[in-house]
Amino acid sequence: MRATCILLCFFTFLVASSAHPGKKKQYKPCKELVLYFHDIIYNGQNAANATSAIVAAPEGANLTILASQFHFGNIAVFDDPITLDNNLHSPPVGRAQGMYIYDTKNTFTALLGFSFVLNSTDHHGTINFMGADPTTLKTRDISVVGGTGDFFMHRGIATIATDAYEGDVYFRLRVDIKFYDCW
Amino acid sequence: MRATCILLCFFTFLVASSAHPGKKKQYKPCKELVLYFHDIIYNGQNAANATSAIVAAPEGANLTILASQFHFGNIAVFDDPITLDNNLHSPPVGRAQGMYIYDTKNTFTALLGFSFVLNSTDHHGTINFMGADPTTLKTRDISVVGGTGDFFMHRGIATIATDAYEGDVYFRLRVDIKFYDCW
Amino acid sequence: MRATCILLCFFTFLVASSAHPGKKKQYKPCKELVLYFHDIIYNGQNAANATSAIVAAPEGANLTILASQFHFGNIAVFDDPITLDNNLHSPPVGRAQGMYIYDTKNTFTALLGFSFVLNSTDHHGTINFMGADPTTLKTRDISVVGGTGDFFMHRGIATIATDAYEGDVYFRLRVDIKFYDCW
Repeated sequence: MRATCILLCFFTFLVASSAHPGKKKQYKPCKELVLYFHDIIYNGQNAANATSAIVAAPEGANLTILASQFHFGNIAVFDDPITLDNNLHSPPVGRAQGMYIYDTKNTFTALLGFSFVLNSTDHHGTINFMGADPTTLKTRDISVVGGTGDFFMHRGIATIATDAYEGDVYFRLRVDIKFYDCW
Repeated sequence: MRATCILLCFFTFLVASSAHPGKKKQYKPCKELVLYFHDIIYNGQNAANATSAIVAAPEGANLTILASQFHFGNIAVFDDPITLDNNLHSPPVGRAQGMYIYDTKNTFTALLGFSFVLNSTDHHGTINFMGADPTTLKTRDISVVGGTGDFFMHRGIATIATDAYEGDVYFRLRVDIKFYDCW
Repeated sequence: MRATCILLCFFTFLVASSAHPGKKKQYKPCKELVLYFHDIIYNGQNAANATSAIVAAPEGANLTILASQFHFGNIAVFDDPITLDNNLHSPPVGRAQGMYIYDTKNTFTALLGFSFVLNSTDHHGTINFMGADPTTLKTRDISVVGGTGDFFMHRGIATIATDAYEGDVYFRLRVDIKFYDCW
């Protein structure tokens, strides 16, 4: 009976820990990826190199002009190369494709919605992201809401940092993807 | 041996119930939050108070004009204060940031994509939402697709109700967030 | 003690298999739906029949023109009928509502964000989708990030195929939705 009691405790622990693996800070990712992506914004002169463009803006809609100094309401669409290190000229392992929407009047904050489309010897599949990006903070956490291929059904948290930028044209983002739900 | 059999049944139940906690109506949220957010649409006169603006529209794209009486195709971007009660002037506990897209020709229906960025003594973190909003219904259910901080990896359902509105300028939305997957 | 050891193995297997049900190719969906949706793009002449429209474009924003031959940056909003078979004139079982964003300069690739709003005798509820759609591939996998009603909290993978198209005006998409997380 004592053995089964110990067993009981053990399984209670096991079941509990699989459903609720402890407090927030104790979670360990089941998979982790650190990747960089490179956003070169179209400025009218760099069509060959540009990887993103502003496609909607209050001015464009001819309906509203509101707080344009913080780009409020601008929607940018991007198709950025992803690299394993912070070098724009490293061989890309995939593309970051999606949009950001500047959504604050008095500072720089964006809503992000995008996919990583990975196609390398190490990784083949897509990772889908969504979340708020208060771009002036050193790091920002967004949600990994799903994945396909090697990332089938995965969920997790991506921590984004602005690794470097040049004026309004080049932004390099470091993304530390921690999956907590692997299949 | 009988004790282990009982144990077997008990654990089988535990494991089964943690994976499939019963039929749809029996689920109980592991966490619940009721919050209000306040959308003040820019109308050309209210730049200081406005919290949202139309940033894209078929007219703006100079390409199409289709069913404009129901705003089909209009994309609005918002950065709305979140309060604990239905008073616009209560101290905000965060911001609702994102977009809605009017997507029906013959009635008012929108696709919502937004984040709650909460920053109060009680809650610190983000909650990410996506779903269809047939705005003329009394309540509409959308998905909570992820979260960060206090809402790390959470999923659930948000029930949205239009709590009040004034013309085309002010909308107050009540959001009843029920998390069914807490970490 | 031997019985409890067997029990131990058995439960270890049970718990492990519920958290990690095997390798990728062994997963079986807990629910599957095959549906078609029909996208009729507004071309200036077909307002009565059109179900989608381009609402933002670099040209429209008056800010950028970049690689327009692949529609880079165009945002289209749609409200398409969903049918059980590939006939546009079959009775619709719901609407596909959302947007796609063309996001590549040198080929056709889009970011999809949309909901299926189902309202038939068989299915009542919404399914929310997000993912990358490299439209020139025969099939493309995107994420099912959540659901409501009959699809409460569901997650899965949707495989999209272009079933037919007519010029730039009509596209018929076949969606094979496989849910792997049913509640």
